[in-house]
Amino acid sequence: MEEMDHLAHERSKAQFDVDAMKVVWAGSKHALDVSDRMARLVASDPVFRKDNRTMLGRKELFKNTLRKAAHAWKRVHELRLTEEEASMLRLFLDEPSYVDLHWGMFVPAIKGQGTDEQQKKWLPLAYKMQIIGCYAQTELGHGSNVQGLETTATFDPKTDEFIIHSPTLTSSKWWPGGLGKISTHAVVYARLITDGKDHGINGFIVQLRSLDDHSPLPGITIGDIGTKFGNGAYNTMDNGVLRFDHVRIARNQMLMRVSQVTREGKYLQSDVPRQLLYGTMVYVRQTIVSDASKALSRAVCIAVRYSAVRRQFGSQDGGPETQVIDYKTQQSRLFPLLASAYAFRFVGEWLKWLYADVTRRLQANDFSTLPEAHACTAGLKSLTTSATADGIEECRKLCGGHGYLCSSGLPELFAVYVPACTYEGDNVVLLLQVARFLMKTVSRLGSGKQPVGATAYMGRAQHLMQCKCDVRGAEDWLKPSIILEAFEARAVRLAVNCAQNISKAASPEEGFSELSADLLEAAVAHCQLIIVSKFIEKVQQDMPGPGVREQLQILCNIYALSVLHKHVGDFLVTGCITPKQASLANDQLRSLYSQIRPNAIALVDAFNYTDHYLGSVLGRYDGNVYPNLYEEAWKDPLNDSVVPDGYHEYIQPLLKQKIRVSRL
Amino acid sequence: MEEMDHLAHERSKAQFDVDAMKVVWAGSKHALDVSDRMARLVASDPVFRKDNRTMLGRKELFKNTLRKAAHAWKRVHELRLTEEEASMLRLFLDEPSYVDLHWGMFVPAIKGQGTDEQQKKWLPLAYKMQIIGCYAQTELGHGSNVQGLETTATFDPKTDEFIIHSPTLTSSKWWPGGLGKISTHAVVYARLITDGKDHGINGFIVQLRSLDDHSPLPGITIGDIGTKFGNGAYNTMDNGVLRFDHVRIARNQMLMRVSQVTREGKYLQSDVPRQLLYGTMVYVRQTIVSDASKALSRAVCIAVRYSAVRRQFGSQDGGPETQVIDYKTQQSRLFPLLASAYAFRFVGEWLKWLYADVTRRLQANDFSTLPEAHACTAGLKSLTTSATADGIEECRKLCGGHGYLCSSGLPELFAVYVPACTYEGDNVVLLLQVARFLMKTVSRLGSGKQPVGATAYMGRAQHLMQCKCDVRGAEDWLKPSIILEAFEARAVRLAVNCAQNISKAASPEEGFSELSADLLEAAVAHCQLIIVSKFIEKVQQDMPGPGVREQLQILCNIYALSVLHKHVGDFLVTGCITPKQASLANDQLRSLYSQIRPNAIALVDAFNYTDHYLGSVLGRYDGNVYPNLYEEAWKDPLNDSVVPDGYHEYIQPLLKQKIRVSRL
Ligand SMILES: Cc1cc2nc3c(=O)[nH]c(=O)nc-3n(C[C@H](O)[C@H](O)[C@H](O)COP(=O)(O)OP(=O)(O)OC[C@H]3O[C@@H](n4cnc5c(N)ncnc54)[C@H](O)[C@@H]3O)c2cc1C
Ligand SMILES: Cc1cc2nc3c(=O)[nH]c(=O)nc-3n(C[C@H](O)[C@H](O)[C@H](O)COP(=O)(O)OP(=O)(O)OC[C@H]3O[C@@H](n4cnc5c(N)ncnc54)[C@H](O)[C@@H]3O)c2cc1C
Ligand SMILES: [Ca+2]
Repeated sequence: MEEMDHLAHERSKAQFDVDAMKVVWAGSKHALDVSDRMARLVASDPVFRKDNRTMLGRKELFKNTLRKAAHAWKRVHELRLTEEEASMLRLFLDEPSYVDLHWGMFVPAIKGQGTDEQQKKWLPLAYKMQIIGCYAQTELGHGSNVQGLETTATFDPKTDEFIIHSPTLTSSKWWPGGLGKISTHAVVYARLITDGKDHGINGFIVQLRSLDDHSPLPGITIGDIGTKFGNGAYNTMDNGVLRFDHVRIARNQMLMRVSQVTREGKYLQSDVPRQLLYGTMVYVRQTIVSDASKALSRAVCIAVRYSAVRRQFGSQDGGPETQVIDYKTQQSRLFPLLASAYAFRFVGEWLKWLYADVTRRLQANDFSTLPEAHACTAGLKSLTTSATADGIEECRKLCGGHGYLCSSGLPELFAVYVPACTYEGDNVVLLLQVARFLMKTVSRLGSGKQPVGATAYMGRAQHLMQCKCDVRGAEDWLKPSIILEAFEARAVRLAVNCAQNISKAASPEEGFSELSADLLEAAVAHCQLIIVSKFIEKVQQDMPGPGVREQLQILCNIYALSVLHKHVGDFLVTGCITPKQASLANDQLRSLYSQIRPNAIALVDAFNYTDHYLGSVLGRYDGNVYPNLYEEAWKDPLNDSVVPDGYHEYIQPLLKQKIRVSRL
Repeated sequence: MEEMDHLAHERSKAQFDVDAMKVVWAGSKHALDVSDRMARLVASDPVFRKDNRTMLGRKELFKNTLRKAAHAWKRVHELRLTEEEASMLRLFLDEPSYVDLHWGMFVPAIKGQGTDEQQKKWLPLAYKMQIIGCYAQTELGHGSNVQGLETTATFDPKTDEFIIHSPTLTSSKWWPGGLGKISTHAVVYARLITDGKDHGINGFIVQLRSLDDHSPLPGITIGDIGTKFGNGAYNTMDNGVLRFDHVRIARNQMLMRVSQVTREGKYLQSDVPRQLLYGTMVYVRQTIVSDASKALSRAVCIAVRYSAVRRQFGSQDGGPETQVIDYKTQQSRLFPLLASAYAFRFVGEWLKWLYADVTRRLQANDFSTLPEAHACTAGLKSLTTSATADGIEECRKLCGGHGYLCSSGLPELFAVYVPACTYEGDNVVLLLQVARFLMKTVSRLGSGKQPVGATAYMGRAQHLMQCKCDVRGAEDWLKPSIILEAFEARAVRLAVNCAQNISKAASPEEGFSELSADLLEAAVAHCQLIIVSKFIEKVQQDMPGPGVREQLQILCNIYALSVLHKHVGDFLVTGCITPKQASLANDQLRSLYSQIRPNAIALVDAFNYTDHYLGSVLGRYDGNVYPNLYEEAWKDPLNDSVVPDGYHEYIQPLLKQKIRVSRL
């Protein structure tokens, strides 16, 4: 009975080859193989269990995370895992820790901003984890505005040192992950001052703690910034606070790849172009887009499976009730998210290619595509993380009351995911950057210089400003060319409208700021177009396995038409489509939901997630939800005793009312 | 310095009388006085402190909640508080507990469904808390579909008893608050069976635990269902699981106001109409709408104040940076939520009146308005709770990184609030009920029977189906009649469109289910119209205090036009407005944001919330955010020691790499 697959019937309905789809989702047969092996390795190791995580107090939780990280490091070496395998293992470990910042920010910062000599000195130590580093940029008073950071690094020519100092309370470093309790070193961003002159923000490698006994070095105050959103979640991470009281470091600990301070205290720019730094941002944000598809697909996997298990209403003659996944309202909330998970996966894959392409060009001193690539990744980071955060919470609601239990996995998934909307660039601030880029692109139209990359469509602005949508029947909305043109026309028209309205303002800056809410919408339209177009391109590729392409085609259309439905105002206001065409799109969408329905379970199976990684009783592969929910409940600490602690002091006197009743 | 009001300058900019607005918000001078006194009483009592709540483990947290509840009970009696005062005190205590279900569900269930005799027996015990009760309806397998509950209550004529039994795992009671650890009694909903015949779901008073030692009575298995979303939050509540193994209760413990079982086992309906039960639902849901405005206004208060404190970018010549509240994007996200808080407050007030009106009519045997009132409260419950949940999270994001800290108060506010979208009726299921009512109303148009109450506008369907919006300039969008007609036209047209499409289907049921996603949108449009129209009515009332009406007028317009902007697709698809008019609405909205800006801080001051109730470092009245954030951080358990627990086992060996490096 326990071994029964309650979803077997659902699986038998699939109209495509699930194993082939697994390869498509993973990216390649090799990638699937690696991720499958690493996922199982983690799932089978008791040290990596996480089902008790939401019940632990902060200290216990944190200690356990340290234990897991150390164990992972040990396994990586025992098994001689490749770098690819090791990073997959860390992914499936599924627990934020200092390790993420060490590999994800500290090492890349040194690689990107350190001289060859600096890299030679620091990277081997970091690779062996003989030092542990974090990325200390944000301060109490400044996050988005990096140029406003207040920490100072003043060069002292007498001793050939920098004096790192926190001159105000708001200059305290605040938020860096791994800083609070673990890191021995940090890349600290500070305002460089030589000879009384302020040269702006630069990075410095600063040792924070003794390598002997881990105590903070003299002049350094350091701690954790406190509990964050959710049970478990990001509380496994020691986001920290850090203050410097005139801490001295050697001059060669300034990261000097793009600018230097000489022994005499002269500030020099090197001939390495500053834009290189943008390359790193493109890299980091591209990984965030790829994480978005992972997080969203996990939530969708849970909600789809549970929606097939859950039955409510509609029993006829004592037969089983309706599976809630068969309600059109459930479908209209759930299937666009399923489609989005696939859409984000493919646009993430494309971004990975884009990063490789940009890197190749940079190495050949070709900077021409960098601004566009930078705007594109900024926008996609913003769009995919916002949609994922909202999507996880929608999946939670789709599970009804049970989604509110930690054992559903969804509360923690949400809480651990949402800061992605804020870190690595606040999503609104990023969209404004995209908008700025779009306005620049519009202003150059007609100058002869053709827009490149994902803005190439703007080169056809003249056509797109006045084209008419050819949809006559609902099935016309299945044509990629029609969908694409509608999205392109909407994006161009919104951008051009904004540009025209800005030009009416007293100054471009004033116009931009006055119209910035509209500009956000134009930026979103541009990014949604990119996602739709990359999904369409993906579906046109060679695709092995029966039925695979057909399913992706349906998902692609669901993604495009559900976005169109949600933002139909944009399409109508700009005259891209007519009300009648909007309503035909809606009809088509309903029909697509019916087509995807029998494949829904298999489409989330294709993510190939273990029950360990999902971490959800509702999302179990075997659909055996109820007995396991019931069992989970009893593990709560409150169930340690039948009569709860506090009963004798606070409940019994109430029930007995010895004193107070007489007073009534 | 600590005593300085960092927001004094903001407060001085207000263009209205804040004290007068406080009265408007509270509802009356008396209500303001009571809430003010009770808020201060709670804030000044150290037992009621809650700033450490998010750091406590489940057991400690729970025990502390019991302590607070007992202390509150004691204070209520010592101070001889009125019922109004006592309920305000519980509100400001701001911590879910068994007390809520006892007063909010157990007592009302007995009042509503018990006979006079039953009320006489049970209510005095409940009033004195000599018994503590909960409301045990939902089961593991059934929540929304109450008629599908599986627990049985089988009459045994031999002993004149009911046998309460849980025949399946999924029949386990699951979710009732207060059940897990505290309640001595429950109103249990079970399938009544007499003589082999199933009479559907009825309520029974069942004792669960011994009044002597609190141990579960024979045949009863009971526990807590485990950790829920968020730190602190709803984990102060013992939502419970409950199984019965043939538990016997006396026949007179069935709640017999609307149906009875005789000594012989005959099932009878009394002459009290069943609809009475809907009255209770109207009551409970009306309180939920009122809670929505409270929760949203708290979040908005925090985000507005912090947005005035927070500065980022835009410093000119070393002067202070721009307050983020001055960015148009921030305003376009924040001010509609501020307006919504006021809108929900006023529609909640109106619902309170509606409930009183329905009750008066019921007592006079007039059931005519009940279905409309029922649909109306169901819809408003759904709309306001969904908007509030989303709004709280948006406020959190509006605070950037710092909003992710528990000390901001926003994570807990979100986590404790979101289940309101699910309990007392899943929000989608409720909207479908509204849609059903709308379809019925549409089908009766032309039958001569005029729609009543909040659907009265549908009586003018003929006009509304073809009227044209008169807006020519942006300022036309300030006219209440124009706004109202646009919202009415949209609501009617969406509803009539749905009805027409349904009529094309094979059967009305099929059509309804096939089109249910569209029906949700029609239901939402109807509910938004109600909120807009009640806000407009409110603004037209007498309003003392200079500037008060003007500010409410602006907020009312912001609410209406921001809803219009968000759903502009509806208005355009149905031809209620033209693209040009949509764009004029947008222009007007921008101007309204500028008008409300100088009043924003004073408008949240008017909520009159204490710093204790807000529970947010970012939302402090004095705006002194940074030193307090800094201080809060050090209270985290992780900061108990400089070197964290786990360092020696899991970090030092890594840094020293004694064994493993040699293997590399
Ligand atoms: C979990 C987590 C982990 C983190 N890890 C690290 C780390 O390892 N290292 C590190 O250095 N930092 C880290 N951070 C900090 C993070 O990078 C910042 O929080 C982020 O950059 C946002 O900045 P902020 O908090 O200052 O937001 P703010 O800029 O204060 O944002 C507040 C509001 O103002 C708005 N706003 C700001 N500027 C503008 C503008 N110009 N126009 C319009 N609106 C504007 C925003 O949209 C937002 O609504 C982390 C943060 C979190 C939450
Ligand atoms: C914090 C909390 C406290 C609670 N307290 C109590 C309590 O004190 N006492 C008590 O008895 N219960 C309590 N409950 C239970 C609560 O009343 C139920 O969770 C709620 O009624 C929703 O039902 P469900 O969980 O079965 O959701 P489900 O009905 O299973 O919903 C799952 C999904 O199915 C969809 N769906 C369901 N039916 C339909 C339909 N006909 N058409 C379209 N879609 C549909 C829903 O929209 C949802 O997306 C509590 C729940 C929570 C979370
Ligand atoms: Ca829209």
